[in-house]
Amino acid sequence: MTEPAYVAVDWGTSSFRLWLVDRAGQVLTERRSGEGMLAAAKAGFPAVLRSHLAAIEAPDHLPVLVCGMAGAKTGWVEAGYVDTPAPLSAVLKQAVRVPGEARDIRILPGIAQRDAAAPDVMRGEETQLLGALGLDAAGEALVCMPGTHSKWVRVRDGVVERFSTFMTGELFSVVSRETILSLAVAGADEAEDVASFKAAVKAAYEAPAFAANLLFGARSRQLLFGGTPAAARETLSGTLIGVELAAGLSGLVPQAGVKLIASGRLAMLYRLAFEALSVNADTVDADEAVRRGLSMAAAAIWTKSEDL
Amino acid sequence: MTEPAYVAVDWGTSSFRLWLVDRAGQVLTERRSGEGMLAAAKAGFPAVLRSHLAAIEAPDHLPVLVCGMAGAKTGWVEAGYVDTPAPLSAVLKQAVRVPGEARDIRILPGIAQRDAAAPDVMRGEETQLLGALGLDAAGEALVCMPGTHSKWVRVRDGVVERFSTFMTGELFSVVSRETILSLAVAGADEAEDVASFKAAVKAAYEAPAFAANLLFGARSRQLLFGGTPAAARETLSGTLIGVELAAGLSGLVPQAGVKLIASGRLAMLYRLAFEALSVNADTVDADEAVRRGLSMAAAAIWTKSEDL
Repeated sequence: MTEPAYVAVDWGTSSFRLWLVDRAGQVLTERRSGEGMLAAAKAGFPAVLRSHLAAIEAPDHLPVLVCGMAGAKTGWVEAGYVDTPAPLSAVLKQAVRVPGEARDIRILPGIAQRDAAAPDVMRGEETQLLGALGLDAAGEALVCMPGTHSKWVRVRDGVVERFSTFMTGELFSVVSRETILSLAVAGADEAEDVASFKAAVKAAYEAPAFAANLLFGARSRQLLFGGTPAAARETLSGTLIGVELAAGLSGLVPQAGVKLIASGRLAMLYRLAFEALSVNADTVDADEAVRRGLSMAAAAIWTKSEDL
Repeated sequence: MTEPAYVAVDWGTSSFRLWLVDRAGQVLTERRSGEGMLAAAKAGFPAVLRSHLAAIEAPDHLPVLVCGMAGAKTGWVEAGYVDTPAPLSAVLKQAVRVPGEARDIRILPGIAQRDAAAPDVMRGEETQLLGALGLDAAGEALVCMPGTHSKWVRVRDGVVERFSTFMTGELFSVVSRETILSLAVAGADEAEDVASFKAAVKAAYEAPAFAANLLFGARSRQLLFGGTPAAARETLSGTLIGVELAAGLSGLVPQAGVKLIASGRLAMLYRLAFEALSVNADTVDADEAVRRGLSMAAAAIWTKSEDL
């Protein structure tokens, strides 16, 4: 086994992922847990990190690089923001060292859009962008990063120019569980209903103002025409994603199409949605992107010193 | 005191309202409770009604007319639907008598739009429409009925032609209580912030596809620029209402403007929203409308018989 060079951590709101990485950027060990910011705020961030480092027997001198919500005001140590227009290279330069720890632990900043008409923030996604696009990708990219709080980002020549957050994933969660529509989706199996999903994406894309009506239609359709809970669930999902795409694609779409940074089921759903609208989308795996971004940052931070 | 002629009941999903009415349509007594369909499905509809009738000492022969969710499949006795295009006069003709009750108890049907592309249902609002517009109002009306599930209805010469339900009220409730935005509105006092509300209505009306982004903006704005919980709450409310208005006003708006059937705080909010968009809205009180609709139906059903 090659020698570990650093530990990379993606510390989100509700998830914690840690990788032990060697000098070449190869992953030696991975750990995942539900100890995201919300859980860690109670248990204590140092304790959570220490327990994972102990579990992988990380040497005392091994540095740790963290991205995500651990750097929020309500996180471990506030890591601030790089303001838009934000060069991705500035993100790695503004990593904040956690005080009072013998080990060299640094947290990457987020990006803020201090525009009174369209204020927005990201934490964690900047590291995915770094990993997916690199430091000095020439040209313009329109990036879609689906999730609980999806981000649409315009990057030009390595600089994050503008971005918008859409709470699509969180809306899907509360709409399908906490509203009258929970009756329509109750008992839905995992079987996909691609036709219902694509139809909903198109309908919402074409008439986004009708979103709250299209959602309710999932229930009315069941009452009047029957239909499976799975079809209703796909209608909710397709409607919310279709509205997001109507906004995300409302500006200029680069010739190359959209860069989709996503993993697993979300990647699959968004690929189907882009397909329904005949929009080109080139997928980059989100897990891989954040790991690559952390590696690039770690190399930039520690390569010049004796720590690595 | 004049003699009571009938009892009118508006039996919604989560509320129960009962009026004892004389032959001239004057209200002699009113009762309100939280025993809507959801509660009554557990306690039993006959028992709930009987307890209220006993409390007002209603004579045994007094007939009862009910509108609303008591007529749903999951209600007391299914009262079916009148299909669109639905003459409001057909609603009172299709009242369903509750079987097995010595007392003459009838439930008014809802209205269904059996359009596979835009399926929709209403129950209770048809009675408000009847009360607000009358049986044979000439001309065209565009009616906005805000609520948990807002309805926008196009009525021509006494016939409900088309309608759309928007789950605006329910979305506001879950978004402000069950998502990350609950942090932004926590501790909001009752003080209104008309400027934030109107600005949000306008922004959402102009870019409805950005709804999920405008909602999230309430939190980003607080993080980056400060701002009160009340301002955040008004932003959520204004955004959701603005999107609804973008859809509701997307067709032809009659010269006379919109007929707004609403009461209390909702009436106030929607009036402000229409004002923000410079759209004429003529308000009819929703409570009064449903009572008047029930009276019209009761008169039509029982006037010819000896019961009244």
